[in-house]
Amino acid sequence: MKKIFILYFFLSLTPFYSQKQPNIIVFIVDDMGWMDTSVPFTDTAYPLNKQFHTPNMERLAKTGTKFTNAYATPICTPSRVSLLTGMNAAHHKVTNWTMPHRDRNSDQSDEQFEAAEWNINGLNPSGDVPRSVQANPLPELLKNEGYYTIHAGKAHFAPNGTPGSNPENLGFMINIAGTGAGRPLSYLGQENYGNIDGKAHNVHAVPGMTEYFGSDLYLTEALTQRALNSLKTPIHRKEPFFLYLSHFAVHDPYEADERYLQKYLDAGLERVEAIYASMIEGMDKSLGDIMDFLEENEIEENTILLFISDNGGLSMAPPRGGTENTQNFPLRAGKGSVYEGGIRVPMIVKWNGVTEPSSDYHQPVIIEDFFPSILQMASIKPSNIIQSVDGKSFIPLLKKPQLKKEDRLLIWHIPNKWIAKDNLGINYRSAIRKGEWKMIYNMRDGSNELYNLTTDIGEREDLSSKYPDRVKELSILLSERLRKWKSPMPIIKLSGVEAPMPDEVYKN
Amino acid sequence: MKKIFILYFFLSLTPFYSQKQPNIIVFIVDDMGWMDTSVPFTDTAYPLNKQFHTPNMERLAKTGTKFTNAYATPICTPSRVSLLTGMNAAHHKVTNWTMPHRDRNSDQSDEQFEAAEWNINGLNPSGDVPRSVQANPLPELLKNEGYYTIHAGKAHFAPNGTPGSNPENLGFMINIAGTGAGRPLSYLGQENYGNIDGKAHNVHAVPGMTEYFGSDLYLTEALTQRALNSLKTPIHRKEPFFLYLSHFAVHDPYEADERYLQKYLDAGLERVEAIYASMIEGMDKSLGDIMDFLEENEIEENTILLFISDNGGLSMAPPRGGTENTQNFPLRAGKGSVYEGGIRVPMIVKWNGVTEPSSDYHQPVIIEDFFPSILQMASIKPSNIIQSVDGKSFIPLLKKPQLKKEDRLLIWHIPNKWIAKDNLGINYRSAIRKGEWKMIYNMRDGSNELYNLTTDIGEREDLSSKYPDRVKELSILLSERLRKWKSPMPIIKLSGVEAPMPDEVYKN
Repeated sequence: MKKIFILYFFLSLTPFYSQKQPNIIVFIVDDMGWMDTSVPFTDTAYPLNKQFHTPNMERLAKTGTKFTNAYATPICTPSRVSLLTGMNAAHHKVTNWTMPHRDRNSDQSDEQFEAAEWNINGLNPSGDVPRSVQANPLPELLKNEGYYTIHAGKAHFAPNGTPGSNPENLGFMINIAGTGAGRPLSYLGQENYGNIDGKAHNVHAVPGMTEYFGSDLYLTEALTQRALNSLKTPIHRKEPFFLYLSHFAVHDPYEADERYLQKYLDAGLERVEAIYASMIEGMDKSLGDIMDFLEENEIEENTILLFISDNGGLSMAPPRGGTENTQNFPLRAGKGSVYEGGIRVPMIVKWNGVTEPSSDYHQPVIIEDFFPSILQMASIKPSNIIQSVDGKSFIPLLKKPQLKKEDRLLIWHIPNKWIAKDNLGINYRSAIRKGEWKMIYNMRDGSNELYNLTTDIGEREDLSSKYPDRVKELSILLSERLRKWKSPMPIIKLSGVEAPMPDEVYKN
Repeated sequence: MKKIFILYFFLSLTPFYSQKQPNIIVFIVDDMGWMDTSVPFTDTAYPLNKQFHTPNMERLAKTGTKFTNAYATPICTPSRVSLLTGMNAAHHKVTNWTMPHRDRNSDQSDEQFEAAEWNINGLNPSGDVPRSVQANPLPELLKNEGYYTIHAGKAHFAPNGTPGSNPENLGFMINIAGTGAGRPLSYLGQENYGNIDGKAHNVHAVPGMTEYFGSDLYLTEALTQRALNSLKTPIHRKEPFFLYLSHFAVHDPYEADERYLQKYLDAGLERVEAIYASMIEGMDKSLGDIMDFLEENEIEENTILLFISDNGGLSMAPPRGGTENTQNFPLRAGKGSVYEGGIRVPMIVKWNGVTEPSSDYHQPVIIEDFFPSILQMASIKPSNIIQSVDGKSFIPLLKKPQLKKEDRLLIWHIPNKWIAKDNLGINYRSAIRKGEWKMIYNMRDGSNELYNLTTDIGEREDLSSKYPDRVKELSILLSERLRKWKSPMPIIKLSGVEAPMPDEVYKN
């Protein structure tokens, strides 16, 4: 009988949602390029790896696994929706960034094409918002299984005027500062993060940070403090948490994080690049604060940390400094492009007992893989979710790095006009990667490019004329996917029909 | 052995925080007067009770207890801080409303007095904010014991630029729309609740309601939907919740709740009063939605509902219609005044198994009583809280209505200049109620008024000359409290010393 009482006492203190489930933190940076770090994701360091200082990314990489072939989409909203739904952007059809207000199309006008029928209203939980994708978002699935779910920072999943603009409608219990806006009006506490009485109101003013108004806290620091503060509750309650810490940095406006600016000016960087580097290091400091907090609270062993960026670094100059399209060197182009500079992103995962310290992982992964991977980390097998998931869990590969999936297809699709003037790999492109090969399709003229990423990560040598059969094969594979997903395509103004699929115009 | 397994199975499904603790909802209305309802809080209905339609307050009163002698302070922030701390306003020293930005004094300038040293920075959790009161806020104590705590609507506990401006720093896990602002810039979804791009930014723009931008949802309705949505998580998790639903209504700006306006225009009310009545009925609809939600989710039996306003109805005209100081008739004056019109508020409590249906409760209670009462409802006996609590739990009296506490002292203290021109009972007053007697002290000239509230609820007949001994007794009692609490007093410019305590100038 005594045993029963002991059992009773013990069990009555056991929470329903066992802390055996690991805590999970997604640390996602905005517009951070693959080279914007002192952690090289290549075999050898490049000059940019020496220009940027990210000691806490180095610290994380030493305890976890670097993903050297990690991808997002070329633009923010598509990546973020992919992460939350597990769907490829060509499938969820949020192929461009969503405007701050609903029913508006961010596509530029074009002489050749009418805009594609993409989901301009982003990700929404209910069926009554037209032109939006419905799905069971990742945080909802985690919350339903007992996770304490927190959103901090940039949301940009859907425009204001729709439920999806508020992370609290996407399964996040707590929302810190997230709206339909994709950038902050100001990073500065002195400017109330854009909330200045009497000045013109702007949808990019950051809400919900009132306690720091008038202070000298840079937004990155303020968001970190708020996020860590919100973790105290699940820690006290011994509940697993899911923190999605989504920094506005390093998106424009380029405003110095004064804590770090001078050292980059002293190093001789031109002012805007010094500012940019200070924003990077402020972001890195946040990562360090997170790791310190986990250690101080003795939960670092049971907390998985996933670091990623939402697309490549911006390579337009101005607003960036230097020569256009060199900002992600050796990668070609930058944000918006289907070249590697626009889609290849820094990614590190630390999971005690699973990831090897200081290890590298070379298999290609893409941002929609976060969805099944995180569910697997949480031991959740979702049933009855409405979307069909394209992402693949990278956990089996983590546990057995010798596994190779050479037949894995990665797809990018942006049937949109992101900027007014076409640029390297930007506007109306699709791309496919299989193994070491990558093909790019240009909807404007039906042309293709082919690169071998193992020998030519910079995509300098177009091999399409040399390997026509491979171009044909990839055109067919890409077209099959796009057809299956009913992916949006732009409309040719002259004929009123959709731009052709790659395999329709491929000329052998 | 089989029994043990059954026990084990059962217990392993039992949450740590047992749902035996009741859910608690504080439904607090802003600036709602004692007569702004079709529920009479007097023995007989007055004309205003016929003017206003609040069917859901009637419904609540039928299932619960009406408090006919319930009080708040004359102004919003002092009441709200009292509710969260259990301290009398003269004790926590937040005696006037806090400005939207820190370190600013809302007191008007005055020829006779320098401003008192009141806590212009409101309620703050940490010690590093000067001129603010530190306390363990009610939601923090509830959260620490497993409650899921939600703030929705007007916060106004402290100015922006201080932690207390954000309810998430005061123990609320979820904050919907609360900041240091005391009113909304707009109640209209069509106006994005004040967030219109290009218009002058204003601190009163309501944050965090992006999903309703451009809709026709009145703010009261939008807040209700958000609050109910947030309750789904604790209900799913079988955790007790504390919802503090704090409507901006019926504070100005007076903007019609179009769902209800026409009926009041048809009834012949002047436009601004019809608008006001529509705002009251919109608030009442929210109350009904809450009750419906509790029933639909089968939690109405285990959910305690407390209804109150934060001060009396505004009786300045304009902005109100009609003749000045008649808006709370038969009570004298209105918001800002220590006359009954400024401090007596509608209050209803429903607690299944404790409150008698359709019962009245006549003992005086005051808003700081919510703190110990709610803790007792939750079976929480706080230890190590830093503030000394002035409020008294009204639960013993609820359970034994025959108990009478005639010696209970209620104190009001506003050593401030709220409006530029003194008006009935407004600016530089203290007041004390003991039993049926109420004395008012005027700091300007040391004069006193005395009323018998049983025979003269309208405070028309000053009995101070008739009962000098009672004035003396109440002056002494009031002064003892103010001295004990070190309550702020205005400074006489001519002498540079504080205005005298009531017992120092009392002339027998």
